[in-house]
Amino acid sequence: MNTSIHGMKRTAWCGELRAADDGREVIVNGWCDRTRDNGGVLFLLLRDRTGIVQCTFDKSVNADLFDIAFGVRTEYVLAIKGKVVRRDERAVNKKMPTGEIEIVVTDIRVLSKSETTPFEISDDKEVNDQLRLKYRYLDLRRPSMQNNLALRHRVTQIARNYFDEQGFLEIETPMLQKSTPEGARDYLVPSRVHPGKFYALPQSPQQYKQLLMLSGVDRYMQITRCFRDEDLRADRQPEFTQIDLEMSFVEQDDVIAVNEGFLQRVFKEVLDVDIQLPLPRMKWKDAMDKYGSDKPDLRFGYEIQDISDIAKDCSFKVFSGAVEAGGTVRLININGAADKFPRKEIDKLQDFVKTYRAKGLAWMKLAGDGKMTSSFAKFLSEDEVEAIKQRAGAKDGDILFVVADSDWQTAVTALGALRCELAKRLGVIDPHDYKLLWVVEFPQFEYSEEENRYVAMHHPFTAPMDEDLDILESDPAKVRAKAYDIILNGCELGGGSIRIHSTETQARMFRALGFTDEDAEARFGHLLTAFKYGAPPHGGLAYGLDRLCMLLAGLDSIRDVIAFPKVQNASELMTACPSEVDQKQLDELHLAVTEVEK
Amino acid sequence: MNTSIHGMKRTAWCGELRAADDGREVIVNGWCDRTRDNGGVLFLLLRDRTGIVQCTFDKSVNADLFDIAFGVRTEYVLAIKGKVVRRDERAVNKKMPTGEIEIVVTDIRVLSKSETTPFEISDDKEVNDQLRLKYRYLDLRRPSMQNNLALRHRVTQIARNYFDEQGFLEIETPMLQKSTPEGARDYLVPSRVHPGKFYALPQSPQQYKQLLMLSGVDRYMQITRCFRDEDLRADRQPEFTQIDLEMSFVEQDDVIAVNEGFLQRVFKEVLDVDIQLPLPRMKWKDAMDKYGSDKPDLRFGYEIQDISDIAKDCSFKVFSGAVEAGGTVRLININGAADKFPRKEIDKLQDFVKTYRAKGLAWMKLAGDGKMTSSFAKFLSEDEVEAIKQRAGAKDGDILFVVADSDWQTAVTALGALRCELAKRLGVIDPHDYKLLWVVEFPQFEYSEEENRYVAMHHPFTAPMDEDLDILESDPAKVRAKAYDIILNGCELGGGSIRIHSTETQARMFRALGFTDEDAEARFGHLLTAFKYGAPPHGGLAYGLDRLCMLLAGLDSIRDVIAFPKVQNASELMTACPSEVDQKQLDELHLAVTEVEK
Repeated sequence: MNTSIHGMKRTAWCGELRAADDGREVIVNGWCDRTRDNGGVLFLLLRDRTGIVQCTFDKSVNADLFDIAFGVRTEYVLAIKGKVVRRDERAVNKKMPTGEIEIVVTDIRVLSKSETTPFEISDDKEVNDQLRLKYRYLDLRRPSMQNNLALRHRVTQIARNYFDEQGFLEIETPMLQKSTPEGARDYLVPSRVHPGKFYALPQSPQQYKQLLMLSGVDRYMQITRCFRDEDLRADRQPEFTQIDLEMSFVEQDDVIAVNEGFLQRVFKEVLDVDIQLPLPRMKWKDAMDKYGSDKPDLRFGYEIQDISDIAKDCSFKVFSGAVEAGGTVRLININGAADKFPRKEIDKLQDFVKTYRAKGLAWMKLAGDGKMTSSFAKFLSEDEVEAIKQRAGAKDGDILFVVADSDWQTAVTALGALRCELAKRLGVIDPHDYKLLWVVEFPQFEYSEEENRYVAMHHPFTAPMDEDLDILESDPAKVRAKAYDIILNGCELGGGSIRIHSTETQARMFRALGFTDEDAEARFGHLLTAFKYGAPPHGGLAYGLDRLCMLLAGLDSIRDVIAFPKVQNASELMTACPSEVDQKQLDELHLAVTEVEK
Repeated sequence: MNTSIHGMKRTAWCGELRAADDGREVIVNGWCDRTRDNGGVLFLLLRDRTGIVQCTFDKSVNADLFDIAFGVRTEYVLAIKGKVVRRDERAVNKKMPTGEIEIVVTDIRVLSKSETTPFEISDDKEVNDQLRLKYRYLDLRRPSMQNNLALRHRVTQIARNYFDEQGFLEIETPMLQKSTPEGARDYLVPSRVHPGKFYALPQSPQQYKQLLMLSGVDRYMQITRCFRDEDLRADRQPEFTQIDLEMSFVEQDDVIAVNEGFLQRVFKEVLDVDIQLPLPRMKWKDAMDKYGSDKPDLRFGYEIQDISDIAKDCSFKVFSGAVEAGGTVRLININGAADKFPRKEIDKLQDFVKTYRAKGLAWMKLAGDGKMTSSFAKFLSEDEVEAIKQRAGAKDGDILFVVADSDWQTAVTALGALRCELAKRLGVIDPHDYKLLWVVEFPQFEYSEEENRYVAMHHPFTAPMDEDLDILESDPAKVRAKAYDIILNGCELGGGSIRIHSTETQARMFRALGFTDEDAEARFGHLLTAFKYGAPPHGGLAYGLDRLCMLLAGLDSIRDVIAFPKVQNASELMTACPSEVDQKQLDELHLAVTEVEK
């Protein structure tokens, strides 16, 4: 059997043939999507990465060709030669981009055969995730997956060309790095040459990109793999990809401006969506107050309102007690949805907000008929109820949800989560709406109960805002950072900061974080040394490429934009890795496996 | 001290200012390269990644500015505002691209200070390698290193844009892979979630890229990091970068053609060198016969000649005995270099060829005065000597070197190495000459004395040449592969092959390699399964990016084109990695370090 491609190489892509190609002699290469025998005329749909085209074999014209085609099964690999002809009016298939034509076949070669696949290669069939991942190479044949791979390629091409135009150099930083005990868990790589010593895979190129700024590179970018050995949540991968960049001699506005240009281009070229610049910016405090989130979704309303001033003296202890304890009472108004929430539903929402540490959920329903029911109104004066309704802009048909808590952040976070959950349930979100914004003025520190000290919210090299430098030691909780996140539809696309470039400020920062000089030296020694030899002002940003592609593709899981993803337990089903290795390999590394429970 | 860049941001790059900028008000940002006080006028050379510009401070004009500049030391980071003015005729510095102008300073800000650097930031100073790598961020400030980083960026941009235009998709393959006991040693990554199991870092994306072809991707490329835990030779790094690609529905000529287009563009855009296409191709056997190497350097002659037919019956047993044993007698003619090789030098060359396993080196010198001296001529007839001279095209002033060996490959390899060594010593190589060629028709197998079987010269998925399929089992030594290497000036830039896409041929290949079905399944199971579901004809190629950049930059070490390289013992001097890790980290991985000898 001749399985060579010689003499039968592609002259046209399946999915690109149109009526204008009428009369053209072509060769197409691809996979048999399916065949249909129509009594002496056989239709064979051939698929390549561009789409599907119909090839026809007429037994009465050429019985030999017909017989070969008759023996072809799904997923056989074929080279087909023929003439493009317009279909009869009746035979036009408007659902197929190539539906106006077909190829009248003059030659066919079977390049390789296929056993019956474990699932059908089609976007119309739901396939179990485990099976999809075990046979990922088959899953990737589906048109939607081909599109996802192509989209990801386009996004990275746009990124590289845009940043190149802006004077950025792509520079590769090491994958075998020094392990630092900060942040998430490192993946370790034992060294054979240095027994007992280990490399770590990078969690991000943070330190190297700052060193590149100290090297005078001025503008660095890299699309690079990063690794975190975390307990995997649904949307996390042990290895993921960042678009990483850093710039010298800049302030926050400069980093933001160059990235807005990038985002505008990506949205235009990938989705043909025009993004208006400059993007809105929102202070972290305002985002939390209004949306209960540092990544607010602006595609819908339901903003959080503060009613502490109204509720502080009411006789409902849940409200007044919260305010008295230094806390707050907040609400959201879910307009026009009063009739969507019978008591049972509201009870479930109680459970929902409790997962966000709220103690409960109060509510007030304004039925269409003017009647009001509420879990708390009876404890309030008529004036207080009126004032709340007015604050909420409540009309008939609305339902208000209220959370009171002695901790401001708990109250707004719970309502913020509820806000998003209800918007999703009520279907008020337009999936083709893209709301980008910057969240700025993040707190420099957050208090770690576990470590009983302030820790850096971003990392210890993030510069504090100039206005807050004076209170770095006296009132750390109030210090804001030159940090910024870029948010799309409630998801964090990326984030970054201006870094500290003054050794004095860096020393103050380490003290504020409770590091001794020895601590700082042990953790960041080479970086601190480097800073002694002339550090330019600098800052940068990193995008999560997987998530960016997922959102651009309108998908729910980053797995669908990664060619060979891992599953929740960090294993890859296709190759069955990780796996056991030879004792010889372990011996060479001077390693022994201890107490493995099966 | 105000160390903010605010209000003092770059409006011009140091190295780009020219006479045409005369009169322009600019702000430049960078590092102080050096200062020179000329009695009341201070010259400060400011450096950024584009070059150096002279800034002048006149005490009589502005004593405050002068005093600040006077306090500036080498490597301080500065923002300088001023007016570009043409220098006096006498003051023009033709060695500097900016030497026709200077900046008359109206403002200066010290953004950060610098301690005295461990070495001077200059291309004119030789610095100890260890010191360079320990303070790599300072080493990278040198103009030559900045150029190397920029060149590498350009090469990768060209690659990505070229292959994008050619319909290739860049697709990321996993870094955390399954360990396979083939080839070089894997770097292992212990899994915390699966105690006792390990990932491996990729030695190349070979299997994944073939799986992508089975996925219908059609044209894949990736610039990606690869890892080999080998004992490092001078020019190897534990992590290195490949430009990796694979194509479906193609033959060798197609892969070669698309890559010739790439190489032509790289040489044009990076070096402004025109490469004529198609590139020459040389069969592996011819390359070995003529150049004693599968990566022949074509920038000079000294080709190897076969004189076995002349020497086979001579009375010099070294020659005739070699032929009798099935071997060969070969020579190279080093034209016009007879007087460069006194007896002592020739003795040293004896040692040189012995490192290539040759038993000795015979020679014949034709002095300028017509006198001939030789180590072997006395054993030969006059006719035999004449025939040899004629075969070698020997003229007065030439020197011939002869190696006889019972093993053909030993003889040509030793002479091939000698050929290159002497060309280098005699300075006959033009460093600005670029001789590219393809070496094709590699042997499919090489015999492994160690394993006492034939092993794949490339890898077990490389397709044999169609003409040799029949002798796969009967005469494996003669089977040639559809494999090709691209060679530049005696260095391998890359290599690849057409892969087997027929399950029958693959099964025969495994048998020829002595694998049982179980062996094959255990080693390559998921790939073999994948091949059952319709495999297109496919093939590809991978370039060593580090080496490509090194050669394009005219350098001798790949370290100089890697931002943060490792040294011979696989450690990085700057961060001192690999390093010991916390016991807690090892415990989480269920690992213990065994018997470490200090």
